[in-house]
Amino acid sequence: MLESPFNDEYFMKRALEEAQIALEKGEVPIGAVIVIKNKIIARAHNLTERLNDVTAHAEMQAFTMAADYLGAKYLKDCTLYVTVEPCQMCAGASYWTQLDKIVFGAPDKQRGYQHYKTTLHPKTKVVSGVLETECSKLMTDFFKSKR
Amino acid sequence: MLESPFNDEYFMKRALEEAQIALEKGEVPIGAVIVIKNKIIARAHNLTERLNDVTAHAEMQAFTMAADYLGAKYLKDCTLYVTVEPCQMCAGASYWTQLDKIVFGAPDKQRGYQHYKTTLHPKTKVVSGVLETECSKLMTDFFKSKR
Repeated sequence: MLESPFNDEYFMKRALEEAQIALEKGEVPIGAVIVIKNKIIARAHNLTERLNDVTAHAEMQAFTMAADYLGAKYLKDCTLYVTVEPCQMCAGASYWTQLDKIVFGAPDKQRGYQHYKTTLHPKTKVVSGVLETECSKLMTDFFKSKR
Repeated sequence: MLESPFNDEYFMKRALEEAQIALEKGEVPIGAVIVIKNKIIARAHNLTERLNDVTAHAEMQAFTMAADYLGAKYLKDCTLYVTVEPCQMCAGASYWTQLDKIVFGAPDKQRGYQHYKTTLHPKTKVVSGVLETECSKLMTDFFKSKR
């Protein structure tokens, strides 16, 4: 029997592809995808430099895209895959979306929502550490190159 | 000597005008303006229904507009006037903008950032309760009409 190719690693790889695009544009390399029933309905990467907008995080764009795709305000059956732990703003946004699940790769000990104790929606589950090494390495390499 | 017309009440009235526009569109009536050196550089109101996007809060739009107007990523010398206390998402966004000051009208005891203890940027000062009665009344009337 064939195993389904769709699991958390599969979708995190898609988020990593987005992070790679951000990197090539000189952006902090963070990528995100939103998935419903194994279907990717939003792909986004950090665009704070290009848009000159500190709120243009990958997750914020992905939330707006996914709602647009679904024609629905809430993302109840959706999972967000994001390469780095969301910040207070993005976690706060996820509260309003009523997202089913957040899966993130690398923790962000300084700016991540867990450090700041942002409250998620009670329905939102969290999985962390998926492809953490790859997600982290993109960030570390980026900041090393900026020094 | 003439007193300057520009004070917190003056700008909160402008934010209330935006909230009124939201109300007329059937949106939760919250309005915001961003001010730098007594000049309004962004005016926005809640558009979550119209845009079908739970992240389309007045503040989020105002941050993006103000950065666009200034051509600068950070809103260092800017004040946000908003009729209702910002939520976690908007307070989290303000962290990234490095806003100088937040002035809000009515508290939001259930969804406001203070209840959730969202961390603001260390440079951001807060003033609350400006035209609180007017700001509150718009919200109360709106939710009464929805029952």
